[in-house]
Amino acid sequence: MKNFPTSKDKPLFTPGPLTTSQTVKQAMLRDLGSRDIEFIGVVQDIRNELLNVAGVTQSGGYECVLVQGSGTFGIEAVMTCAIPRTGKWLIVINGAYGQRMQKIAEVHGIPTAILSYDEDQHICAADVDRVLSNDPSISAVAVVHCETTTGIMNPIEEVGAVVRKHNRIYFVDSMSAFGAAQFDFQACEIDYLVSSANKCIEGVPGFSFCIARRSALEQTAGWSRTLSLDLYEQWRGLEKSGQFRFTPPTHTMLAFRQAIEELKMEGGVPGREKRYQANCAALLEGMRSLGFEEYLSIEKQGHIITSFLFPNERNFNFETFYEKLNDRGFVIYPGKVSNANCFRIGNIGRIFKSDVEALVLAIEIVLKEMHVSLKSSEAIA
Amino acid sequence: MKNFPTSKDKPLFTPGPLTTSQTVKQAMLRDLGSRDIEFIGVVQDIRNELLNVAGVTQSGGYECVLVQGSGTFGIEAVMTCAIPRTGKWLIVINGAYGQRMQKIAEVHGIPTAILSYDEDQHICAADVDRVLSNDPSISAVAVVHCETTTGIMNPIEEVGAVVRKHNRIYFVDSMSAFGAAQFDFQACEIDYLVSSANKCIEGVPGFSFCIARRSALEQTAGWSRTLSLDLYEQWRGLEKSGQFRFTPPTHTMLAFRQAIEELKMEGGVPGREKRYQANCAALLEGMRSLGFEEYLSIEKQGHIITSFLFPNERNFNFETFYEKLNDRGFVIYPGKVSNANCFRIGNIGRIFKSDVEALVLAIEIVLKEMHVSLKSSEAIA
Repeated sequence: MKNFPTSKDKPLFTPGPLTTSQTVKQAMLRDLGSRDIEFIGVVQDIRNELLNVAGVTQSGGYECVLVQGSGTFGIEAVMTCAIPRTGKWLIVINGAYGQRMQKIAEVHGIPTAILSYDEDQHICAADVDRVLSNDPSISAVAVVHCETTTGIMNPIEEVGAVVRKHNRIYFVDSMSAFGAAQFDFQACEIDYLVSSANKCIEGVPGFSFCIARRSALEQTAGWSRTLSLDLYEQWRGLEKSGQFRFTPPTHTMLAFRQAIEELKMEGGVPGREKRYQANCAALLEGMRSLGFEEYLSIEKQGHIITSFLFPNERNFNFETFYEKLNDRGFVIYPGKVSNANCFRIGNIGRIFKSDVEALVLAIEIVLKEMHVSLKSSEAIA
Repeated sequence: MKNFPTSKDKPLFTPGPLTTSQTVKQAMLRDLGSRDIEFIGVVQDIRNELLNVAGVTQSGGYECVLVQGSGTFGIEAVMTCAIPRTGKWLIVINGAYGQRMQKIAEVHGIPTAILSYDEDQHICAADVDRVLSNDPSISAVAVVHCETTTGIMNPIEEVGAVVRKHNRIYFVDSMSAFGAAQFDFQACEIDYLVSSANKCIEGVPGFSFCIARRSALEQTAGWSRTLSLDLYEQWRGLEKSGQFRFTPPTHTMLAFRQAIEELKMEGGVPGREKRYQANCAALLEGMRSLGFEEYLSIEKQGHIITSFLFPNERNFNFETFYEKLNDRGFVIYPGKVSNANCFRIGNIGRIFKSDVEALVLAIEIVLKEMHVSLKSSEAIA
């Protein structure tokens, strides 16, 4: 029977949309008018709380702007609003999400300089320094915090120092890290940061958000290349009336407000980071014991998502592996994004160490069913 | 106490987001992976069912493309994808949503011709004919079906015949009408139609959809001015893998699938239209009996949303009127969009004749509290 509903949903070990708490989803069982006073309060709460999560304040010179759509919509908003029509981006790439920024610039005909690295290598602040020294026409620098392609955690603070030294605009795509990775927003010298509702804050998908330095944002009137993704006008609208210019995803935002409450209950960013780190540690331990190897060297590995190399074993077929895990009630990311032969398992969302341990057990059983025997699992068997 | 939750939400007499059924909202109490097989089935169901609602088929040459964000995002997608970089739009305007199309073209530097009418006047097919005859450089024509500014219902079939005669592309913004206004999609000669999740289908906000003639859409590879709103690539992605290119609002889409089921249960478009017409008739009758006058002449008035003139009475103040209604548990649209001094009451969403009658009673009480006596209410009193 097609899509016969099960008693519960499968836990999602993906980079998002994620498993969320029941209470977050239940917050959506309401219909509020998007221009009504109660909803305006919800929007204001969310904007204030996101600044809190970032560790900055409006009085300290920061603003939070919400943008409908997926995370990519927020990225496109910054890429097409943060520099003037004559501007130029330096995009620093070590994965698919850096490449996506490049793609955005291309579509809009925005000039770019590109610094590229292999997917298993950190981006390098000294290289950024050199490029900025040699090219004064570069207006702004865009980097990815946690490259979800592999899970690599890039050194955003080192790069930020260099960008500030050269007095350019600094944009950090922190899609999959914000809310569960501690960093000092101001020390990183960030002008624009983007993440989305359905990542580490554990809301449901439907909007992205930008935390911006006001002094940067207020320069950008008229710079937007689009109407829908005009960050400046969106900010002005939110400030003036508390309202979105165009219909917001009201239910998604009710869920998000609840998700922020639950983030606070967990001890904020440090508390959430700790749980995800525990998930990640349990995953690494379990997968290593089965004989899997990580794609990244340990010092580059973040705690958000982990890439494992395909086993060098004739009987291993990823599609079969994915489907058998799915049949057992575990959803990992179905497909390959990086250039290397690896698959990814997410450590984020409303999942706990016990869920990760159950996943590892399921993987062990699935490998046996597939007659795949890896080095260490042979040793164990 | 701030935002003290009430036992139920106030009915929304607005142009959207609307009141939705409890079962539509409950469909969101799940977390599905956006690339997982079950969710791919949900996306496919929605795309097929939307073609059914439009009365067209894929085998008959039509496609349904879903776009994250509000309705405006869908409008911007078509405006920036449906004509080549050298193309030109004719935009036919009799309200704020036509003006928004013009604004979109301006931001993107797309050449336009504009045909403008007063907000209480229909757009005119003969005028479109004349403009197209005189300007062969116009690639496409954009009109609004029901101008939500006032509620006026434009003659999309007459305009469509003219656009076809001149062999141009025809775009209808049917945001607030689609799903509750019967029309013959093919007879209207529509190439692109856009509406959104939270209008007459009675879903929750978070995405818009475009129903497109395939022979038009398949010409447009590379025409998009943005990445996020690239209709062609979005279509190709949906066809190839059943997946969105970028994270879809999974919960919103689960709600929407349920909303479509409930539309079918109500007898499809004719059934829904009938209920909204009954709502509209009850509203007109009640408001007239209180002494209000409609802004539009009756033959131009649609059944989606109704504009009433501000009473010519010293004691009437719209903000007070709105707030007092809100205190009594009725949300109408808070503010004025049209150039005329009128306010708007929506007839759409999960509201029934009895809700409209309760609203009219509340309005009567509020007028008394405000010491506003209108002509007819004096007669009654």
